[in-house]
Amino acid sequence: MNITEIYNHVRRQSEEICSLLNTEDYVPQPVNFVSPPKWHLAHSSWFFEEFLLKKHLPDYKIYDEDFCFLFNSYYNTVGNRSFRAERGHITRPTVAQVYDYRNYVDMHIQLLLQLKDLQIHELVELGINHEQQHQELLLTDIKYILGCNPIFPVYDENINWENQQNSDSGFLTFSEGIYEVGHNGDGFSFDNEHGRHKIYLEEFEISQSLITNAEYLEFIEAGGYSNFNYWLDEGWAWVNENEIKAPLYWHKIDNEWHMFTMAGIQKVDPEAIVTHISFYEAAAFAEWKDMRLPTEFEWEAASFKLDWGKRWEWTNSAYLPYPNFKKAKGAIGEYNGKFMINQMVLRGASCATAKHHSRSTYRNFFHPNERWQFTGIRLAKK
Amino acid sequence: MNITEIYNHVRRQSEEICSLLNTEDYVPQPVNFVSPPKWHLAHSSWFFEEFLLKKHLPDYKIYDEDFCFLFNSYYNTVGNRSFRAERGHITRPTVAQVYDYRNYVDMHIQLLLQLKDLQIHELVELGINHEQQHQELLLTDIKYILGCNPIFPVYDENINWENQQNSDSGFLTFSEGIYEVGHNGDGFSFDNEHGRHKIYLEEFEISQSLITNAEYLEFIEAGGYSNFNYWLDEGWAWVNENEIKAPLYWHKIDNEWHMFTMAGIQKVDPEAIVTHISFYEAAAFAEWKDMRLPTEFEWEAASFKLDWGKRWEWTNSAYLPYPNFKKAKGAIGEYNGKFMINQMVLRGASCATAKHHSRSTYRNFFHPNERWQFTGIRLAKK
Amino acid sequence: MNITEIYNHVRRQSEEICSLLNTEDYVPQPVNFVSPPKWHLAHSSWFFEEFLLKKHLPDYKIYDEDFCFLFNSYYNTVGNRSFRAERGHITRPTVAQVYDYRNYVDMHIQLLLQLKDLQIHELVELGINHEQQHQELLLTDIKYILGCNPIFPVYDENINWENQQNSDSGFLTFSEGIYEVGHNGDGFSFDNEHGRHKIYLEEFEISQSLITNAEYLEFIEAGGYSNFNYWLDEGWAWVNENEIKAPLYWHKIDNEWHMFTMAGIQKVDPEAIVTHISFYEAAAFAEWKDMRLPTEFEWEAASFKLDWGKRWEWTNSAYLPYPNFKKAKGAIGEYNGKFMINQMVLRGASCATAKHHSRSTYRNFFHPNERWQFTGIRLAKK
Amino acid sequence: MNITEIYNHVRRQSEEICSLLNTEDYVPQPVNFVSPPKWHLAHSSWFFEEFLLKKHLPDYKIYDEDFCFLFNSYYNTVGNRSFRAERGHITRPTVAQVYDYRNYVDMHIQLLLQLKDLQIHELVELGINHEQQHQELLLTDIKYILGCNPIFPVYDENINWENQQNSDSGFLTFSEGIYEVGHNGDGFSFDNEHGRHKIYLEEFEISQSLITNAEYLEFIEAGGYSNFNYWLDEGWAWVNENEIKAPLYWHKIDNEWHMFTMAGIQKVDPEAIVTHISFYEAAAFAEWKDMRLPTEFEWEAASFKLDWGKRWEWTNSAYLPYPNFKKAKGAIGEYNGKFMINQMVLRGASCATAKHHSRSTYRNFFHPNERWQFTGIRLAKK
Repeated sequence: MNITEIYNHVRRQSEEICSLLNTEDYVPQPVNFVSPPKWHLAHSSWFFEEFLLKKHLPDYKIYDEDFCFLFNSYYNTVGNRSFRAERGHITRPTVAQVYDYRNYVDMHIQLLLQLKDLQIHELVELGINHEQQHQELLLTDIKYILGCNPIFPVYDENINWENQQNSDSGFLTFSEGIYEVGHNGDGFSFDNEHGRHKIYLEEFEISQSLITNAEYLEFIEAGGYSNFNYWLDEGWAWVNENEIKAPLYWHKIDNEWHMFTMAGIQKVDPEAIVTHISFYEAAAFAEWKDMRLPTEFEWEAASFKLDWGKRWEWTNSAYLPYPNFKKAKGAIGEYNGKFMINQMVLRGASCATAKHHSRSTYRNFFHPNERWQFTGIRLAKK
Repeated sequence: MNITEIYNHVRRQSEEICSLLNTEDYVPQPVNFVSPPKWHLAHSSWFFEEFLLKKHLPDYKIYDEDFCFLFNSYYNTVGNRSFRAERGHITRPTVAQVYDYRNYVDMHIQLLLQLKDLQIHELVELGINHEQQHQELLLTDIKYILGCNPIFPVYDENINWENQQNSDSGFLTFSEGIYEVGHNGDGFSFDNEHGRHKIYLEEFEISQSLITNAEYLEFIEAGGYSNFNYWLDEGWAWVNENEIKAPLYWHKIDNEWHMFTMAGIQKVDPEAIVTHISFYEAAAFAEWKDMRLPTEFEWEAASFKLDWGKRWEWTNSAYLPYPNFKKAKGAIGEYNGKFMINQMVLRGASCATAKHHSRSTYRNFFHPNERWQFTGIRLAKK
Repeated sequence: MNITEIYNHVRRQSEEICSLLNTEDYVPQPVNFVSPPKWHLAHSSWFFEEFLLKKHLPDYKIYDEDFCFLFNSYYNTVGNRSFRAERGHITRPTVAQVYDYRNYVDMHIQLLLQLKDLQIHELVELGINHEQQHQELLLTDIKYILGCNPIFPVYDENINWENQQNSDSGFLTFSEGIYEVGHNGDGFSFDNEHGRHKIYLEEFEISQSLITNAEYLEFIEAGGYSNFNYWLDEGWAWVNENEIKAPLYWHKIDNEWHMFTMAGIQKVDPEAIVTHISFYEAAAFAEWKDMRLPTEFEWEAASFKLDWGKRWEWTNSAYLPYPNFKKAKGAIGEYNGKFMINQMVLRGASCATAKHHSRSTYRNFFHPNERWQFTGIRLAKK
Repeated sequence: MNITEIYNHVRRQSEEICSLLNTEDYVPQPVNFVSPPKWHLAHSSWFFEEFLLKKHLPDYKIYDEDFCFLFNSYYNTVGNRSFRAERGHITRPTVAQVYDYRNYVDMHIQLLLQLKDLQIHELVELGINHEQQHQELLLTDIKYILGCNPIFPVYDENINWENQQNSDSGFLTFSEGIYEVGHNGDGFSFDNEHGRHKIYLEEFEISQSLITNAEYLEFIEAGGYSNFNYWLDEGWAWVNENEIKAPLYWHKIDNEWHMFTMAGIQKVDPEAIVTHISFYEAAAFAEWKDMRLPTEFEWEAASFKLDWGKRWEWTNSAYLPYPNFKKAKGAIGEYNGKFMINQMVLRGASCATAKHHSRSTYRNFFHPNERWQFTGIRLAKK
């Protein structure tokens, strides 16, 4: 596919994700870290308008000045933005108007791509990858929105992500020595993975499978959530303040564990890979098993031998810059660098990640208490 | 009109209020004290189902068990209720499904009214008055929802409530002595106004007009919001913590005061009656004028000579029970009595009150910081 | 006693209250509504310095400019005040320095009183009454400070306030008609009780005894704290948010109810009058008994027949101005008027009230959730 | 000095630090991260009692059971602990009683040390290092307590830490390659620095001097605190929510920058090394300079050439376990490991660090917003 085809394909995927929604589902923002589906659809269009059309398409006419204000996310450089916590109160523009906006942007991006300018193509590629990131957020945010409805609506009864199982087992051993990590510059990548460089690792072993619901249930039944010994101090505070007793979306109904899935509420499947786990829970589970989480570098060194793509895997690495990391000038520089504090790196990809979006050098990151993504646990030892 | 006609008429009015909304506008709950329009439409139907159809219509089949849970407001007696703060996150049932629910309830209430049972008629009358209260809330909540959108959408360009003016002026004097207050039992009334009884009043004077925007602007320009001397202590804390500088919905644009109205944003009209005033502001204004707010009893004694119905008028009376007040048994007893703390009484009615809903003995009540209703200021002296 | 003798006597009483403290006990402010004993001692001296010595004693030299800033309470007129929430972090001036300050003020007040000026004498009388109010707060704040120490220190083993019993029983009946309330101007009084005026009361009955621990335990054991039917809506929220299960200072130890008293921890005495009750609890108890709290006017009308002085008695009257109430000009006007919102009136006096300080027209006031004063319950009916 | 002499010497130092305090200064806890001096003195004694005397001294009689409860800090293993936020409300035991407790513990430790048992000596060594850590906290907490008093008391007019200057200048270059980091096992060390291991570093340059007040003032005057471009996203939120405009303890008085020091308030000395800087500020300053903070490994590799010991130096490394890190079993295992999340490593030592306490492999750690320690900025580049 050429870039225009890829662009169109990816843009259609976002809309396909939303095709199962009612108009009402597009509106709410139940918690700060979730955005309304309407907002995602508009914001990913605004990104193309702001960074491409306004600057590079001659005589481009902005669709609506208000949209710049409403659908900017965190780019301080670009201007005032609407408060993150208030995205769920903005009922106008309507969903239909947001789709009109998308069409308008798409039509003009087609025109722009005819210019065949390399810098433009690179920025469109960035916008496509940005849109794919929002596709994953769309899915996890839709799950969150439906999941806080006490009547547990079904998103799509044909999706069975929460029932995925492992295909491998056992541990792999890697020997002490120098390894190379970071992106080698071939194909698209984000700035946070740039700067391929050497690191020195001690010998380590890494599991070929992710922790299952059955294994996690053992931890729960062994009193894992009520024994401080397994928890980081801030994790223990998190467990107690929020009265956490199980992964997100787990509900005990008639004394049996159920989980809310994209296909509605169902019994917890013991064979399936556990998901919606915070870093705190992953670390406590590892401590209970007398093992540990891998670092992001161990993970990357081992990645060519791992089957992955079902859950984002928490590592015990903080999200920090690689040697020689440089923020781009201007608003694009706000993409990654300014988040490099208080977050932990996740590697791999999940069932909700857009196809071909991730790679072995990809660095995802979330706060240690966040668990509405499809996250899971891979253990390491030594 | 007979009771069936009244019922139908009132129910249609609720829907007419919503006829100008987009589906998206029915969903959000931007702050705790505002409810989504969808919720109001469903809740006022649930009231009829819960207190009439379930108990009094033979073989009635509940429309949907989930709705009892989702659309109960504060009737602890009736069962678990969904958290007040989470009404804005419930996207299903959809708006269309809520209208189906209304139709189902309406159809069965018609059947019930054919029974011609006096107790049923009285409960239907209560339900009609309850629905009218929610019509006013619908209007003020819609204004609030649209008003927190930075692009200030228009609800109805033909409504000009915020431009209403006084028709009288001057002060009336009432002499010291015994007066009677409270409802005399003729026609519908709420339990909080029952028990007509004597009170003793000192001589007082009461204004025949409400404070206008021009008068209120004088207070602002005289530094009213920055001089603690005019404010109750908790009012002064409220002003400072919330950085209050003007009535709700006022915005200074290009150095000129504007107000958000049902018809969109417009310049403040100096001749119009000021509105969206908290009790704290009303009390501070009165202090600045070296006057005071009337008590609810002074107001009621004077009411036969007052033109009213444009703004809810803050009184300096706390919302407390009348002598011999008795809560009804069961859930209906939760209607009024349990709110008799920390709220101040408002008398009169507003531009948004349903026709024929209020009367001179009617006791409305809000917390002293609340101002999203169409509230105003009438002064008294002596 | 002449005014100089009264002044000296009252000032010594404050110091006697503190004579049982260690230096450390003078320092903390565990919650906002409690002040450190050191602060009370300094603030009541500052009151005399600010309102008397600075204005009326020729050539008076302010003891320390910093003290004006540190020990002003809420008089906005007088200047910047230190944040209320930070009184417990101010370790200097030391306790010894505060006593020096008291001596300095006392010495100069003696000089001032030699001037024999009526206005001065009136202000000194106000200062003396103000000091007495702080004596009660000193005692209740000391109890609170010691009571949040998990080792429950004893303040004075010879005080047995919490074991006081009723001396009367039965109900008194008062007939419908006009009564007079408010202070008649004879002797000292606060501005909030001024303006003797007529009110009209329905017939009512009022209990001659206060509720005992035994009676209150019945309410607890009948599930009073877990049945929403008895509670005001905001009271019910208060109970649940704070997990209230008994009066303040009650602790269940080895399955038996104990209470922390001025003399340390001891078993709840069933014969004693219940204390440390919030308005919410008093109202819920009355509801459970199918009675009610008296209004402050019923209480005042009946007061000549009541034995009182053991507990502050919650009334069902909001703290609001009497007819013709006028705030004094200047800082003294901040004494009472600005608190007339969201508080309920208590009548009588408590075991901790200074001798001769209260009277039948005295209006005390607290928020409905506050219960660290020695508060109790008297019921009314009809 | 033998271990008994060292023990006695270190214990005396804690008391010497407090010798300048008034009794009142020992009591408050103005914010959660600060503890009352009285608590530090008791807690460091409790540490010896709990981990040594109770287990290893035959027939040892616990001084007071209540103290275990009151003066445990965060050792969940050992039993219930008093809430961290309430340490400032505990007035008893008094300061004098805490000194008695110290004497009692000291006397028994002397007896214990006569046993000449190696494991005991190791635990005493840990207790001594623990006491030294609390000496630094004592000093910084005393500064914090005095610093929130608006009259700015002097701790010791002979201390001039805040005026310390650099003795070196210029940058050092280190070449790419394998380095070794971590403690080599010789002498005392904490478990978090164990496991000497290889790391691979790119070429880097590191400054020989710390940033001065003059340099930091340039950043302030260039609008550093109001330009989001320099800040991490959470740093920018921290600046805005807390209205941060300068380092902690800086006050603009009569339009000139002053700083509160151990010797009272004084003008900011431009030649002195800047201190009381959060990680967010350090990172923003580095960004403004177009440089960066060193990693903890760069710092350690360079340490043999650096003059240090004046300020704790923020690194851009998150506090995470070294390879093969193992928590000790039992309560001692809670010392370090459970804090390995959301904190950044600081290297070096400060003017307030006990002599001989730190070393080049020492890993200190704080949250990125914390700045009441004597922290400073060293820059790196490449």
